[in-house]
Amino acid sequence: MLTISDYQNIIAKEFDSITENRKPENLYEPISYILSLGGKRIRPVLTLMAADIFDGDCKKAISAAKAVEVFHNFSLVHDDIMDDAPLRRGNETVHEKWNLNTGILSGDAMLILAYQYFEVYEPKIFQALAKLFSKTALEVCEGQQYDVDFETRDDVTIPEYLKMIEYKTAVLIGAAMKMGAIVAETSEENANLIYDFGLNLGIAFQLQDDYLDAFGNPETFGKQVGGDIIENKKTYLYLKAMEFSNEENKQQLLHLFSIQPNDNTDKIESVKTIFNTSGASKATQDAILNYTEKAFETLSKMNISDDKKTILRLFGEKLMNRNV
Amino acid sequence: MLTISDYQNIIAKEFDSITENRKPENLYEPISYILSLGGKRIRPVLTLMAADIFDGDCKKAISAAKAVEVFHNFSLVHDDIMDDAPLRRGNETVHEKWNLNTGILSGDAMLILAYQYFEVYEPKIFQALAKLFSKTALEVCEGQQYDVDFETRDDVTIPEYLKMIEYKTAVLIGAAMKMGAIVAETSEENANLIYDFGLNLGIAFQLQDDYLDAFGNPETFGKQVGGDIIENKKTYLYLKAMEFSNEENKQQLLHLFSIQPNDNTDKIESVKTIFNTSGASKATQDAILNYTEKAFETLSKMNISDDKKTILRLFGEKLMNRNV
Repeated sequence: MLTISDYQNIIAKEFDSITENRKPENLYEPISYILSLGGKRIRPVLTLMAADIFDGDCKKAISAAKAVEVFHNFSLVHDDIMDDAPLRRGNETVHEKWNLNTGILSGDAMLILAYQYFEVYEPKIFQALAKLFSKTALEVCEGQQYDVDFETRDDVTIPEYLKMIEYKTAVLIGAAMKMGAIVAETSEENANLIYDFGLNLGIAFQLQDDYLDAFGNPETFGKQVGGDIIENKKTYLYLKAMEFSNEENKQQLLHLFSIQPNDNTDKIESVKTIFNTSGASKATQDAILNYTEKAFETLSKMNISDDKKTILRLFGEKLMNRNV
Repeated sequence: MLTISDYQNIIAKEFDSITENRKPENLYEPISYILSLGGKRIRPVLTLMAADIFDGDCKKAISAAKAVEVFHNFSLVHDDIMDDAPLRRGNETVHEKWNLNTGILSGDAMLILAYQYFEVYEPKIFQALAKLFSKTALEVCEGQQYDVDFETRDDVTIPEYLKMIEYKTAVLIGAAMKMGAIVAETSEENANLIYDFGLNLGIAFQLQDDYLDAFGNPETFGKQVGGDIIENKKTYLYLKAMEFSNEENKQQLLHLFSIQPNDNTDKIESVKTIFNTSGASKATQDAILNYTEKAFETLSKMNISDDKKTILRLFGEKLMNRNV
């Protein structure tokens, strides 16, 4: 089996000239641009890796892997418009560098291009991939809508929040891996198990993101620590803290999540104290472990060699230790 | 064979409860809304009709027809954002009734839903439909981008303009009919011929739209006559007038297409006079006839009964007489 950076290199090469010479330029240049900004290419790497795990040829999975990455970047372009985000991976977002209309239209074209990458496969595999892709893509849209809806709601429950992160983030991780399994033509059971592996690992990863946003190491986390608190984002930590707090702490938390001071240092410290004393931090860490364990449990049922199981487990641990 | 209004009724019924009970409501309500605004449902009608023409069962084509109509409405929702249009079919546009983000996200979901309607077909037909659909959808995006690009260009050529309306409008008419042919499992030759029939009729229809926008009967045209002139739109009429005019008329036309008076009556009359005296009106009418004739020429090569050919010809004539 290849290493993660081998897979990353295969993918990177594919995106070097992805929309070269396509016209109109104003439609395709922004697509080249966003795809050239890189990122860790985790999703397409997972597709290639899954194909290898199930004794497929990872080269055969390249086109499906590209579909996954182009779709992911489509969702970034449209989400950045919705969030009015100026930067993506340290560079201007598409709608900032060009304009709103270019962001919408280039995004639309990317969604269609993603489907076209499945056309290299024979009809049965094509249909299996496209069906999984459509289901997943629709769930990602639904997850994004839930996220938007939650901003203006104060009665979001934990199950609702978990469903939101599952749809917005985790289903694409699961689908990316299942696509590798489909291309490798493994059993349906194996394909569903690797989906569950990716799905649960995706939920664990997103919950960890919530946790590290408050308690991560500023030097290694990559994003501004405390960002969610500054933006009054109702993350898993917040929802758990509200659930566990007495009336006084609840009122304080509600107050803290209604203000937007110029200097956020005190606000961040006060919120983090409540997260810790209420037991929300502990509950979040427990949930991360539970979902990671749930992911690893699928391995025992998977019909692959122990070596392959070890590879998947090590990848999962590496991902959760943020060393990917 | 059924009548056009029979087909329209079949389609209308399908959209009665298309997104019922789907959640989140804020994603699916706008989709129900735009699909409930009606319109003539020309494209899905063409899919059903084409299936019947090639001795298929038009009922089997319903799902493909829905895909075409949902895609068309997706493009309306996103185009209305790009054009900042307040009204669609006499009602508020989605981004006006809700907001920008809802318009983007509901549109994205519609594009994915369109693909899902193909899932009822067996793998080979599914792949044929989805491939044609992706190619067409991407061309529609490209056509929209050309249209946007042309607004700020003053060197648009006639071939470029024709390519723009072909991509933006005509390819979907061709594809709608070819999908009916694919579902009916007719020969590839027949399927390509009906595509060309729809494509050329679509170009003729769009050129006629340009013509009627200036010279149509205000009581029957449906849109404001002179609208393109008021908006300084470089239509086929304008481009031909620029091609045919002497330097003096050219300068006058350039001047007229640079101003935005409060009262447009004089401007509209002056432009229409140049359109007529330059020969642009005649040239546009000729082009409409040529493309209509090109559509009808495909009939002689089609391997179907003469009765069926007559049905297609009558439909084409009805469409070009704007009685559909």
